[in-house]
Amino acid sequence: MTVLAGGVGAAKFLAGLAEVIDPAGLSAVVNVADDTLVHGLHVSPDLDSCMYTMAAVNDSDRGWGLRGETWHAMDHLRRYASANEIQHGDAAGWFSLGDRDLGTHLYRSSRMAEGLTLSEVTAEMTRAWELGCDLLPVSDDDLRTRIHTTDGRELAFQEYFVRERHDVDVSAIEVLGADVATPAPGVIAAIETADVVVVAPSNPVVSIDPVLAVPGVREAVARRRDSVIAVSPIVGGAALKGPADRLLRDLGHEASVVGIAQWYAPLAATLVIDVEDEGHRGAVESKNVSCVVTDTIMRSVDVSADLAAFTISAVLGSGGR
Amino acid sequence: MTVLAGGVGAAKFLAGLAEVIDPAGLSAVVNVADDTLVHGLHVSPDLDSCMYTMAAVNDSDRGWGLRGETWHAMDHLRRYASANEIQHGDAAGWFSLGDRDLGTHLYRSSRMAEGLTLSEVTAEMTRAWELGCDLLPVSDDDLRTRIHTTDGRELAFQEYFVRERHDVDVSAIEVLGADVATPAPGVIAAIETADVVVVAPSNPVVSIDPVLAVPGVREAVARRRDSVIAVSPIVGGAALKGPADRLLRDLGHEASVVGIAQWYAPLAATLVIDVEDEGHRGAVESKNVSCVVTDTIMRSVDVSADLAAFTISAVLGSGGR
Repeated sequence: MTVLAGGVGAAKFLAGLAEVIDPAGLSAVVNVADDTLVHGLHVSPDLDSCMYTMAAVNDSDRGWGLRGETWHAMDHLRRYASANEIQHGDAAGWFSLGDRDLGTHLYRSSRMAEGLTLSEVTAEMTRAWELGCDLLPVSDDDLRTRIHTTDGRELAFQEYFVRERHDVDVSAIEVLGADVATPAPGVIAAIETADVVVVAPSNPVVSIDPVLAVPGVREAVARRRDSVIAVSPIVGGAALKGPADRLLRDLGHEASVVGIAQWYAPLAATLVIDVEDEGHRGAVESKNVSCVVTDTIMRSVDVSADLAAFTISAVLGSGGR
Repeated sequence: MTVLAGGVGAAKFLAGLAEVIDPAGLSAVVNVADDTLVHGLHVSPDLDSCMYTMAAVNDSDRGWGLRGETWHAMDHLRRYASANEIQHGDAAGWFSLGDRDLGTHLYRSSRMAEGLTLSEVTAEMTRAWELGCDLLPVSDDDLRTRIHTTDGRELAFQEYFVRERHDVDVSAIEVLGADVATPAPGVIAAIETADVVVVAPSNPVVSIDPVLAVPGVREAVARRRDSVIAVSPIVGGAALKGPADRLLRDLGHEASVVGIAQWYAPLAATLVIDVEDEGHRGAVESKNVSCVVTDTIMRSVDVSADLAAFTISAVLGSGGR
């Protein structure tokens, strides 16, 4: 199985999937266009969300980072910032990193400074958490999502997402570096050889699109269309979390399962929608996408596992749990 | 008053001095040749020792870092390192950074990435700790002490000091970058205009010598020789802490107050020695250095303050406490 993955939604789906299949047969191709340097450290929010959630050490209430986290480093940093009335830039500390989480970023940054690729250090981290699966950054090259706002600003992804709490009107999105990036080792093979390719319930605009934007990835997924199934991140016209609905509307799309069906139609033969959206089944299928319906709201690992099993069996028939 | 400063000994002396004079009249010119990048962060061990000790937030038992520190980030990092059997390099985590201490390094690195000099960010940090004095890195340029060992290795300072616990035979020491460095703003003026210039009881070889190695500093100190007083870091033939005695011997000098007198004779008219070494007074003075005797073992801030007051009055006569 191969999963195209962004952050929280994908992480939960992957944790469920690892309950119902042998993780040795599982690859996740993960967005890295949200990656950022914070205080000189390489932070990979989506890889970390997947890793922490699969290791069951994530903070599910906060929605990011580690459970039982402490914040001494950031509190200490903010002492300097506030004494000097610093409001902007890294030093202002608006991008919070917990103390344990810092260990992840310090390790990643060290190893990359020693010459490892992001893929290689991710494999080391996956080993340390004993995940058993492959977490593959979609590329080892730098990809950076840039958000253009209707009021003429250009924001780095984390400025948009964290600092501005995605409360801005977006006019366009670009993924810097995508045109010259190459897929990381194993990415294309994972898509080509999987029995099922799942597009996780992640933000299609800023999580999945940057994965597809790496030359060769979109084409590889499209070639597998019959074995590709997307899980809708939109339920009842809204994103469960984050700005997917607003972004779809800002960019002229419909923020509904029908909009998602149309968005993914060139890539995925099947769409999983939530029971709440069952009434839209016909409209989804009018987009030339098979529609299957189940509970997609991953309140617990058990629900995630049921959703994962259902998703696999929707493609394979009798597979799954 | 201006103090040429290294790490722990200087930090204690400065904390004592700030008790007996108005800190507004105090400048410390601090060694930065121990500075290092750890996990991409700029760490300034001597500046931090001075800052934390003057702010009375240092851990005096451990001898470095902050009191009440936690180690979550490093513990977490070492989880990755040990799972991958990594023994060397930054990622091995042999250079420990506490969680709160990381806040300092993150802030410093951020501000420097934003374009500030080390002097400028140090001034911001001094302000945050309300120290009232000037902590001046001797230079804003990169200085890096390199340790050459008799068995042919070349070690960065922290590899020598922390990783090898300074248990190596040293054949030579060089300060990379010193020949092209310029003194940071205020450094030469602080030496030229001070009523008294104190050479703190720091390691003469690896703490004070790199300060003097910045072009213009040694000459400025030598011109003030009559107003310069050194406090011996050697008591009873041994360093109170660290490798000063072994380094002096390795490099062919005498590890005694007499060796210190000879070392500093071109720069300092007066040497403060400990009561334990009173018997060496004549030998010290034979080096053309006035000798004054007091308790130099800074067990407490009160003792440090007494030593500081005594040191000032040894130059100024009736000054001090």
